[in-house]
Amino acid sequence: MSHNTFGHLFRVTTFGESHGPLIGCVVDGCPPLIELAEADLQGYLDKRRPGQSRFTTQRQEPDQVRIASGVMSEEASGRQVTTGTPIALIIDNVDQRSKDYGEIRQQYRPGHADFTYDAKYGIRDYRGGGRSSARETAMRVAAGGIARKVIAGVTVRGALVQIGPHGIDRNNWDWNEVDNNPFFCPDAKAAALWETYLDGVRKAGSSCGAVIEIVAEGVPPGWGAPIYGKLDAEIASAFMSINAVKGVEIGDGMAAAALSGEENADEMRAGNTGVPHFLSNHAGGILGGVSTGQPVVARFAVKPTSSILTSRRSVDRFGAEVEIRTKGRHDPCVGIRAVPVGEAMMAVVLADAFLRHRAQTGAPDARWPFPRS
Amino acid sequence: MSHNTFGHLFRVTTFGESHGPLIGCVVDGCPPLIELAEADLQGYLDKRRPGQSRFTTQRQEPDQVRIASGVMSEEASGRQVTTGTPIALIIDNVDQRSKDYGEIRQQYRPGHADFTYDAKYGIRDYRGGGRSSARETAMRVAAGGIARKVIAGVTVRGALVQIGPHGIDRNNWDWNEVDNNPFFCPDAKAAALWETYLDGVRKAGSSCGAVIEIVAEGVPPGWGAPIYGKLDAEIASAFMSINAVKGVEIGDGMAAAALSGEENADEMRAGNTGVPHFLSNHAGGILGGVSTGQPVVARFAVKPTSSILTSRRSVDRFGAEVEIRTKGRHDPCVGIRAVPVGEAMMAVVLADAFLRHRAQTGAPDARWPFPRS
Amino acid sequence: MSHNTFGHLFRVTTFGESHGPLIGCVVDGCPPLIELAEADLQGYLDKRRPGQSRFTTQRQEPDQVRIASGVMSEEASGRQVTTGTPIALIIDNVDQRSKDYGEIRQQYRPGHADFTYDAKYGIRDYRGGGRSSARETAMRVAAGGIARKVIAGVTVRGALVQIGPHGIDRNNWDWNEVDNNPFFCPDAKAAALWETYLDGVRKAGSSCGAVIEIVAEGVPPGWGAPIYGKLDAEIASAFMSINAVKGVEIGDGMAAAALSGEENADEMRAGNTGVPHFLSNHAGGILGGVSTGQPVVARFAVKPTSSILTSRRSVDRFGAEVEIRTKGRHDPCVGIRAVPVGEAMMAVVLADAFLRHRAQTGAPDARWPFPRS
Amino acid sequence: MSHNTFGHLFRVTTFGESHGPLIGCVVDGCPPLIELAEADLQGYLDKRRPGQSRFTTQRQEPDQVRIASGVMSEEASGRQVTTGTPIALIIDNVDQRSKDYGEIRQQYRPGHADFTYDAKYGIRDYRGGGRSSARETAMRVAAGGIARKVIAGVTVRGALVQIGPHGIDRNNWDWNEVDNNPFFCPDAKAAALWETYLDGVRKAGSSCGAVIEIVAEGVPPGWGAPIYGKLDAEIASAFMSINAVKGVEIGDGMAAAALSGEENADEMRAGNTGVPHFLSNHAGGILGGVSTGQPVVARFAVKPTSSILTSRRSVDRFGAEVEIRTKGRHDPCVGIRAVPVGEAMMAVVLADAFLRHRAQTGAPDARWPFPRS
Repeated sequence: MSHNTFGHLFRVTTFGESHGPLIGCVVDGCPPLIELAEADLQGYLDKRRPGQSRFTTQRQEPDQVRIASGVMSEEASGRQVTTGTPIALIIDNVDQRSKDYGEIRQQYRPGHADFTYDAKYGIRDYRGGGRSSARETAMRVAAGGIARKVIAGVTVRGALVQIGPHGIDRNNWDWNEVDNNPFFCPDAKAAALWETYLDGVRKAGSSCGAVIEIVAEGVPPGWGAPIYGKLDAEIASAFMSINAVKGVEIGDGMAAAALSGEENADEMRAGNTGVPHFLSNHAGGILGGVSTGQPVVARFAVKPTSSILTSRRSVDRFGAEVEIRTKGRHDPCVGIRAVPVGEAMMAVVLADAFLRHRAQTGAPDARWPFPRS
Repeated sequence: MSHNTFGHLFRVTTFGESHGPLIGCVVDGCPPLIELAEADLQGYLDKRRPGQSRFTTQRQEPDQVRIASGVMSEEASGRQVTTGTPIALIIDNVDQRSKDYGEIRQQYRPGHADFTYDAKYGIRDYRGGGRSSARETAMRVAAGGIARKVIAGVTVRGALVQIGPHGIDRNNWDWNEVDNNPFFCPDAKAAALWETYLDGVRKAGSSCGAVIEIVAEGVPPGWGAPIYGKLDAEIASAFMSINAVKGVEIGDGMAAAALSGEENADEMRAGNTGVPHFLSNHAGGILGGVSTGQPVVARFAVKPTSSILTSRRSVDRFGAEVEIRTKGRHDPCVGIRAVPVGEAMMAVVLADAFLRHRAQTGAPDARWPFPRS
Repeated sequence: MSHNTFGHLFRVTTFGESHGPLIGCVVDGCPPLIELAEADLQGYLDKRRPGQSRFTTQRQEPDQVRIASGVMSEEASGRQVTTGTPIALIIDNVDQRSKDYGEIRQQYRPGHADFTYDAKYGIRDYRGGGRSSARETAMRVAAGGIARKVIAGVTVRGALVQIGPHGIDRNNWDWNEVDNNPFFCPDAKAAALWETYLDGVRKAGSSCGAVIEIVAEGVPPGWGAPIYGKLDAEIASAFMSINAVKGVEIGDGMAAAALSGEENADEMRAGNTGVPHFLSNHAGGILGGVSTGQPVVARFAVKPTSSILTSRRSVDRFGAEVEIRTKGRHDPCVGIRAVPVGEAMMAVVLADAFLRHRAQTGAPDARWPFPRS
Repeated sequence: MSHNTFGHLFRVTTFGESHGPLIGCVVDGCPPLIELAEADLQGYLDKRRPGQSRFTTQRQEPDQVRIASGVMSEEASGRQVTTGTPIALIIDNVDQRSKDYGEIRQQYRPGHADFTYDAKYGIRDYRGGGRSSARETAMRVAAGGIARKVIAGVTVRGALVQIGPHGIDRNNWDWNEVDNNPFFCPDAKAAALWETYLDGVRKAGSSCGAVIEIVAEGVPPGWGAPIYGKLDAEIASAFMSINAVKGVEIGDGMAAAALSGEENADEMRAGNTGVPHFLSNHAGGILGGVSTGQPVVARFAVKPTSSILTSRRSVDRFGAEVEIRTKGRHDPCVGIRAVPVGEAMMAVVLADAFLRHRAQTGAPDARWPFPRS
């Protein structure tokens, strides 16, 4: 059984390989009558697009998305809107350069999925990583653009908060800084240091990991579900499905283990909007799998790019031992471009949770039943 | 939309509340002809059962599981085996003591799901936490016992590796120690220190968090799936669905971000069984969402129990501000009893991945196609 | 892969065998705050219950349903309502008499699932048909009672319209007659004739088939979905999942093939409620997989009970040829008791379609956008 | 919630509208290492392609299918094989002629999905029927071609057995005749009569319905599942999802109601292959939702094409009453081209059932455990 669909009611199915003719996705379950044009999605894709700084792969892909179905011009308004039917998005692959990868077609690169795909399927697409390439995430970003429209009112933003061993100073957090540096870093000082650090990594032919934080503001209380459909479980699944991710945290995350009960539990006071006001947000906006109305805060750690210039020991598909150096064009830190991907996955999870909540309760958002009689 | 089912082909649906007449689950998709008796499951339940030391809640529940369907005696052998039809498991609730919870029926305990259930549904079962109680995890443990039988040959074990801020010394790791202390701790020295530490926490009416590590040995290469059905995404979803979990890690987890590419990628040498031999396991046994044949290693962090004796500020369901102290019987560290739950969820994820792998490839396990012609 | 769950958002999972200790189901996804007591379900179960006339099996089962989870008393009103969490329903098996079935434990009854279960699983529960027994449908009827509450405003009724070769005269259709005879027959004259006919069948130790018609009134336009989630496809799947069903029809059904395009297409005139008025209902209330606002009309054919007293040729599980007569207590026409089952499945399909429609469009019902600007 | 995916393990997701730039589908879950080229699918598409006789729409669509992902050349053999990743198929729309449909953009054609799509979504794609067009079925036929490869060994064939009121003589059944006439009719005499009949229908600007029979030979015993995943329920759902279908039958279908128990139950004798030999096939190859090893026989009825030249009464989307004649290019009997679509859906259902059976039991086919010890 293969799994290329994410979501329950807002469902994203992706297809295509790194070096095939195209990649694409089908978004099924999108509500009708939402204004949607290619330009709405292109901005997010441009943010993820490679080749924009010396810190990402030099592969040149315009990543122009086409909407192939599911929208039409509304008679009266002339607006292009969704029709409720599946929305297909397609991006043509342009700059494949397959010859770059020729010599590793029979060798398993350490840290890559080369061996495991072969072990599972008895065949693997060695051309640019085939289906396991991060190229697939372009479609997530496009689908995330649609998801954002479904949950209009919710703001989903991401930032890089650690690169290699170097974290940001949270006191310097400024969302406006995120677009002022090539790292989506909210701390201008850290960004300056990272530039030097990453130049060193790049020149050494090495790579490093990163931690990405995604924050969703405006999520009303009540989204998510108990037990196995928990909002945090869906986020964890979504983030862990991104290439190279090895850890996921909600709110205080792993550090919650070291807190006392007094420190951890977020106290509440009466809010003036009928929703309680929380005095802290250790929970990351989720309690019992359901949103609290506070910002949803989640992080994920990306391991260092496995494609490095240093020679490493491995085997080939015939079992022979080899030494392998990965040439070709690679990101020294795949975590950078994972920021828009993380945003997109958060948006998709929330759009799905919103539709599920609406199905079961009939509420467009959580109407906290206060004041009560 | 409510979600009370976990898994795709090996599916576990749980039901029942903390203070209802019973809790139960339905395991659907279990292969036929697997020997199964209640005694096979009871041992795992006993491990999770409360009231076994002064460090867990004093609620007394025998947690006797009954198999209500899906098994019968095989004519020839007399063995009780699965029939391929749904297996229903039922545990009667015995020691409810509902009156303990009476006074918090209209107040929202900080850190609990009280507010969010009310926000979502407009009603919540305040009796012992209702559906959000950790009592639901008893059924996971029982279902996990069936899952273990489906993946006979795989050993799933768990241990507590951190309690509050105090981690173990991994050099002392001894699986045999796990059952010698009330913490499932593999480091005898750490266990001794934890006893003192946790006594202090308990007497102070406070609580603490923990980190649990689950290791599955014997998983062949090839289980899991690319993209959204990644084995690590399923594990993350499974662990994050356990009460109070705030972080999930695979292999090196969040720490992978601080490694260099050279450190992180596990090198391979020719193995003598036709499967490559890995020289390290930073990946935690999973690459590209598919198992490598190394041990699958995953961790999750549990936040401190929210029910503490210290008075905390909150609101009630009418919006009035209140001070609240949680009396009743609670675990000072819910992380302890989360160990068998984590094991069970890992077993369920693996059983599901095994069936999915078998469906798509026809292979009972990954037959790494080496040597090749 | 086993499949014991029906529905997407309103999901019914059944479990239990004919001669096990109990049968049950879990209804997941039911909206919260719906008033629900056991008495609401018992009436439907009593209608399906065996032993009520000489025309159904003499097995005596009180079929007392218990709600084991998912409801609680609302503080303010004292009403027992759903909480949004899974509703477990349980019925104890009382009158099993396993010895009746002893001698067919190794023989395959023609027309039964005996051989196919054994072929699939390598084992079968021969006690009363095990999981393949019509007893499983009791849980559908109970779940259908909950579904009816979810779609309050929709009336779902069923009737037997043919027994053996004898159909009703549709000019005599009177819903009030349905409860006046042991056949759920809406035509009093036909019912009288059927009584004689079925007495003959019963005394001959033979059996006969039947056709059941289910009508749902009050379904608003817009429920259902295009392509694979068509409302009619869901109904077909639901009906075909009932024991012994061999055909399903929507509206004119198989007879539609013989109509001309002029006869078949239902003409429309302006309605006075903002919804078009249809001049006929050949479509059975569904066009393009979506409800039209007309009554949803569907039928299914039930084959004759396979358990007959006449000796038939068969084989046993060792491959030996045998002659077999089925003793024990059986319905001469299982179609009679299929009426409440068909009603229940229709209600479940509609509840699911309602929730799906609400998820995607936000509309509690289809608000046909007329008049438009 | 929209539903554009069919299948559980072999999953087909279609997208695209009649008059958009393209239509496509994603086949997920296909096993790896199956030889697959576009030419393998094109033959089935050509069979469904319009404009091949005067009895089908004159729209000219070459329907050239492209495989956009999921296959690659195997290193050693040079064969193009599936890789286990999603297979995307794309067909460009060529001959749209949107202007034909301009005048019905605001009117609801009786018998069409025009009104219901508008009622559901508040918008509809009036261009060639948009998503509700039978054009979507081209992708099913292509996907069915892949499914056939998954169940190599099973032969799936279809035939038209009734057109308007005129059925075939089953004594004349000759599969070789099916490709000798424009109707896929297995009875040469009937085909000759149908030609005259359908010419009359066409010239009158009218339309007629049809009944299609699909037969799958070589299905081993054991495919399918009990209760809600019954093989016949899946077939019913698949057929009912085809445009204009109003009835589905398995084996004797609706006529089973009129049989006696003695007539209906298929007797068995010892077979010489370890599988019982059935003396008849009233059951259509399915008992208890599971295949018996006999041919799987199913039928579906297609209503007359709703697009006719005769003026019919209807309303427009503003509620005004109108008279409407449907010009444009239409099939006088859509049932003809439904034959390859029905074959494809049967193949998809069987491929899915095969993978499900393999998942749960590990058996590539049902190994009836005879002789037993």
